[in-house]
Formats: sequence, C-alpha cells, structure tokens
Amino acid sequence: MSRIVMKFGGTSVGSVERINHVADIVKAELDLGNQIVVVLSAMSGETDRLINLTKDLSDNFPSSEYDVVISSGEQTSAGFLAGLLSSKGIKAQSRMGWQIPIITNDDFRSARIKAIHSEEILNLLESNEVVVIPGFQGITSEGRITTLGRGGSDTSAVAIAAAIKADFCDIYTDVDGVYTSDPNKVPNAKRLDKISYEEMLEMSSLGAKVLQTRSVETAMNNNVVLRVLSSFSDLSEGKKGTLVCSENGISDKKIVTGVTSSSTDAKLTLKGIKDKPGVAAEILGVLADNGINVDMIVQNISDDRRTTDLTYTVPVDESDKAKKLMEDLSSNLSYKDLIVDSNISKISIIGVGMRSNAGVASQMFRVLSQNNINIDVISTSEIKISVLISRDLTERALNMLHEHFELGKITE
Amino acid sequence: MSRIVMKFGGTSVGSVERINHVADIVKAELDLGNQIVVVLSAMSGETDRLINLTKDLSDNFPSSEYDVVISSGEQTSAGFLAGLLSSKGIKAQSRMGWQIPIITNDDFRSARIKAIHSEEILNLLESNEVVVIPGFQGITSEGRITTLGRGGSDTSAVAIAAAIKADFCDIYTDVDGVYTSDPNKVPNAKRLDKISYEEMLEMSSLGAKVLQTRSVETAMNNNVVLRVLSSFSDLSEGKKGTLVCSENGISDKKIVTGVTSSSTDAKLTLKGIKDKPGVAAEILGVLADNGINVDMIVQNISDDRRTTDLTYTVPVDESDKAKKLMEDLSSNLSYKDLIVDSNISKISIIGVGMRSNAGVASQMFRVLSQNNINIDVISTSEIKISVLISRDLTERALNMLHEHFELGKITE
Repeated sequence: MSRIVMKFGGTSVGSVERINHVADIVKAELDLGNQIVVVLSAMSGETDRLINLTKDLSDNFPSSEYDVVISSGEQTSAGFLAGLLSSKGIKAQSRMGWQIPIITNDDFRSARIKAIHSEEILNLLESNEVVVIPGFQGITSEGRITTLGRGGSDTSAVAIAAAIKADFCDIYTDVDGVYTSDPNKVPNAKRLDKISYEEMLEMSSLGAKVLQTRSVETAMNNNVVLRVLSSFSDLSEGKKGTLVCSENGISDKKIVTGVTSSSTDAKLTLKGIKDKPGVAAEILGVLADNGINVDMIVQNISDDRRTTDLTYTVPVDESDKAKKLMEDLSSNLSYKDLIVDSNISKISIIGVGMRSNAGVASQMFRVLSQNNINIDVISTSEIKISVLISRDLTERALNMLHEHFELGKITE
Repeated sequence: MSRIVMKFGGTSVGSVERINHVADIVKAELDLGNQIVVVLSAMSGETDRLINLTKDLSDNFPSSEYDVVISSGEQTSAGFLAGLLSSKGIKAQSRMGWQIPIITNDDFRSARIKAIHSEEILNLLESNEVVVIPGFQGITSEGRITTLGRGGSDTSAVAIAAAIKADFCDIYTDVDGVYTSDPNKVPNAKRLDKISYEEMLEMSSLGAKVLQTRSVETAMNNNVVLRVLSSFSDLSEGKKGTLVCSENGISDKKIVTGVTSSSTDAKLTLKGIKDKPGVAAEILGVLADNGINVDMIVQNISDDRRTTDLTYTVPVDESDKAKKLMEDLSSNLSYKDLIVDSNISKISIIGVGMRSNAGVASQMFRVLSQNNINIDVISTSEIKISVLISRDLTERALNMLHEHFELGKITE
C-alpha cells in the first residue's frame, strides 16, 4: 500500500470526458490498495476567462479580490471530480484550501505555503475516502483567500505530499515525462526514466515547462519523490513516465542529462562606459531597486582600452523599463551607445556529471563554433552551462548539442 | 445614516457593464453616508452552466459536491464587485459564507440558515468598508459548503439584514417593484408603493416571482424592512420601488392588493372512489411519505351518491410520480378513473382587507362566472382566495379581476 498524491493539470480536467478519464486513473490506483489524495487545476481556459473578466472590470484590480475570483476555478474542478467519483460508488470528498487549511503568507497572487494541517486529510484517508483538493489556493493566517501564482497547483501537490508523508507525488500532464530536450525542436529527444532534483530544477528554470520550478524546489527540500506521467495515455499501456528523485537514487549518471532553450530574455548592452570603480554596481543597483531581475551579466574591456562594455539580460517584458532606467542614468554614466536585443535565445546543457568532468564547457563551445553559432554571453553553475545565441539558430544548436552528448541514445 | 443591505440578482451582475452600474448604485448610497453590505447572486447563466456540467458528469451527482461547485458562481461575483469598488477608490472587501460564517443545516442544495455571526461584518462596517457577500451559500457546523436552493440569495440578504440589524434590505432586480398583477399579462397593472409582509408572502407563493417566499418569511419574522428596487433604472430617476413592511406601516388598506396567476401545478382527480372513512387520509399519506407537496384539495359526493371524487393539485414536475403512486393504490381504493390535467392555472386575489370584508369571495366568483370562466377548485385563507381555471383563460381572468377590484386606479 502506498500513499499517493495525484495532481492533474488543466488540460487533464478540460472537459467532461477528460474528468471521466481522471476518475478512471484514480480508480486504477485505488484498486491497487493505495491511499489517494487528488490535487486539481482549474479546467483549461477557465482561469484565463476569469482573469480577463477582472481585466475588463479594471486595469488595477486588487490582488486580494483577484485571488477570491481566480481560486473558484480550482474549487469547481475539485467539486466535479469528487462528485463524479462518489456517483461511481467511490468514496470521495473535496476539501478546499480553507477547510484543510493550507496556510500561506499574504502575498496575494503569488503566495507561498507556510503550513499545511494534515489532520483532516489523514482522517479522511483512514476512512478510505479519496480526498480531492483544489490546487493553487490557500488562506492567510487571517483567513483571506490566496493563490500561489500560475502553475501553483504543482507546488500545492508537492507541499501536500510532504505534509502527509506521501510515498509518491504523481504529476499528471499532457506529456508522458521529462525529455532530454524539447521534442518539438529536437526530433531525437528521449524521455528520461529518472532525473535528479538538482537537474530538474535547472531544466525547469532554463526552459523545460513540464514542472514549475518552485514545486521541484519544494520536492527537493522535503525529499518528495515525483513522478511525471501522462493523463492522456491509455490505462492499458501501463505507467511510463519520469521519476524525479535525489541523486542517490540514480545509478547511471550521464555527464549531460538535458539540453534546453529559453527565449524569454532580452539583452541590453551599454557600449563605451567610462571605466571607473562601481559602475556595474550602480547599474545593477538601479535595476534591483526597480524590481527587475538580471540574469546573465558580462563586462568587457572595449577596443580603446579606456572604456568598457557591459551586457546583461532581463525578462523580455521588462526590457522597455530597463532601457528607460539606463537612459535616465546616461548623464551620470556617460556611455556611448545602448543596444537592446530581444532576438536571442539561451541554450543550456544540464547534468550532475559536470561536477566531476572538466572540459564539458569547452566541448559545448567547440560544437557551437563548428556549426558557425556565435556565443554572446556565458554563465555557468556547478551542474549547467548557459550561452546566449541568436534566436534563429536555436534548433540547430539544440540538435547539435543533443547529438554531441549522445542524449538520443538513452534507452529504457 | 442608515445601515443597508443591498442585494443584486443575476441579471443585475450579468456583465461587466451591469457590475459597473451596481458599483455606481452602491457609491450613491455610500455618498449619502450609509453603511453598506452588498449581497450578490451569480452572474446570470453561470449557475445553469455549472449545473449542466454536473448533469453531464452524472445523473446522480451528490448534493454535497454539487454545492461546492455551484457556490463558486456567487464567489466570483463577490470578488468582481469588491475588486471593482476597491479599484475605484471605494474601501470594499468580500467575505465568503465560510469567512463570516453563515451557518446552515446540512440539507445540501436547499439548506436553511441557522445562524449568522455578525461580528466580522460589523467590524468591517465600523472601518468604513463596503462588505460584499455572496448570497445563496453557507457552511454546516462541520464546515462543509452548502447552498440555500434557487433564489436563496434573497434569503441570504434578509438573514444578514436581520443579523446586523439593518434599517433596510434593498432587493435590486430587473423590475422596479411589486405590481398589482403581472404587467406582461395585465397591461393596466400598477406598481405598489407599499405592501404588507403577509400579502407579499401570499403573492410570492401564488405566482409573483419578484421575491423568494422564504426571504419574505424571514423578513416578516425578523421585522426587516424590504425595498424592492430596479438596478436597471437610471440613478438620476431617483428611487422608485415597493416597500414591504408590517401592516402597521400601511395606512390606506385596500380590500384587494393584488391578483396573481401560477401555472406550476397539475390537477389529479380520482373519480368514483368507494366512500369509506380514511380514504382521503390514505391518499394524502402516501403522497406525503413520498415527499410530494399537495396544495389544493377538494372532495365531492359523486352523482351516484355512493362514491366520491377526490381532486388535488401537486407541482407539475411531480405529477408523473403522483400518478404512479395512485395507480399503485388502485387495488386498495377501487376508484373508477384517474384524470391528470396540467392544463390549469391558479388565479388568486390577495389583500389584508379581506379579513374585515365579507363577500369578497362571492364577488370574485361572480366576475369569473360573468366572463364564462369555470371554477374547478377553490381554496381560501384569511387574506387570499385561489381558484383553479383552464389555463387558456388565465389572462382574461386576471384582467377582469384586476378591473373589478379597481387595482389599476392605485396612484402614487
């Protein structure tokens, strides 16, 4: 007997037919003698419908009431599934965030879970009830409704799994696992049987959309074993998917596990800044004060050796704001030119094996250069290397790196 | 300064434009220095959309989860209005049924309010907040979500008004008050300035759709002054509407205040029953045991003077069930014939003045007979007389009675 949290995303509950299929998947797990908690997203499209209505009402709709509105989508999903299961003779009850309760901070629209009271859930499981919980929602300690931000249902599921000490947290989605690269761009991409939390975390933040970064973080910190599974495959096909667990659980470590791309950043270059101490600190300080996250940064001595060029990336939807801030600084900094380029792509290779293998970076740069792909900016961590390239070269870079590191050869 | 509960129905919050108009009406009351609680229905169409989804999922969808699903419609309305008011600079906060809390019994789908904790509402009012509360919803003492049944938002509003000792409970709807008869059928119908609780109660249960019967009952029992107002009229037109209050508040009492029709019943006639003691009791007992409400009943000696005919009415959607029950009884009762007729209409005249005026019934019967309208069944109470007639004669009967009792002459 295992205790399992099963999370289904919006497309998995997007219609009456899909909800029926979810009920079948739940029943199959139940028939194996498992204890089941289900965490659901809103039906696909529903959250956007509600968000658009708040936008139509006001362009400064307050976050606390936004959360009251938006959280209703998950409430109805949970009611639908619990009701359907009951009507099929399967003992099931829904519990809202406030009923459990799931306590969050009061950062409306993007709250963080502080505590989950597991008693009610455990009591229901002991009575052989399937517990159906809306994801994405919680309440503050004062009892106001909060939501966790987009994709927050993954985080709800993992946090609930941690609270009730579940054996598995199964994330059901419209793909059947985590792939070595995006199959839409790399035809040869293979599904991974296992991946470590650390790698998954980098994959998620560097472009893989299958799991929300925060949910992986929560799983890692609480040692919750994740399984990424498809809710669209036939039950008779058996459970294929990807296990996300600690490094210790993975025996055959590759040097590189995955290759990702991300096109959500813009690059700003300040050319010919007078080189005096504290210039970079001043620029980054202004951006931080205005809530703009800077990702990659590089500073070069310019050709004339008395000035310097500074390049950094920011989320593309904040690039206008960043540009404006740089223009405001221009009298103070006296730079020659400001170039904004959003036609870029960030390509990353990820793998825990890099820790013990020198020379992976140079292999990556060589592969790209052999394919006439220029590298703009480089950033590295212990288990990943990211480079900026021109956006139109994204697929070529992904496929060449995927081939070079032999990711297509992973077999089950 | 008055403390006012303002309730808006589904058509009043049916679109972004309508919600904006509601915000204007709220602001106008606030500008007069009043304390405001707003109670809202779901956007028109939303409740039906959700109900249909539960029906698509299962034809025996359990009531407890039905309430989880359906109550979300009012939740979003409340969030929408509270958010819109805030974004216009008006202090406003929503509070769900569970946050107040509004405690009901556990009769899911048609729960009754047992208690409303007014403390949170009063605290918010003291801080000059508009409190926006979804109608129709509550929780059981165990914390499960309940709904009050269709039209329950009126009851929510009145119960909240009673709990916080509001000076007025304003029911905003798509008509501007209570009329002497249905203006769609009686062109000469006039809006009433005032009507007593007792009369309103009879009007509501006898076909006037403007207020839910239970809400009038709750208002009467708690002496809550109701005002029926239109949310569709221009603010500049001023507040026209109908005051619903105790009889003492009404000086110029008419004998007849209103004429209503209702076509929601079917008539069952058992012909030629062997006349023995306890026959009527047996028939009505079976119906009651099966949860069927019998409205009008009449028993006649039949032509042969040894058998009897029994006629009664039940809600039209329960007539098949009633017919089946009668057929099951046939061996026991040995009646000659069973006739089910749903082509009927119940016409009622209502007025507290009847108490002190004999002869109103005979006037009613004479008017109908002079117009060749046959009366089937009669039922009376202290302040109303109802008759069954053929449905195609509904409008003629309404207009003739309306004219006879001079209801068109009421002036403001």
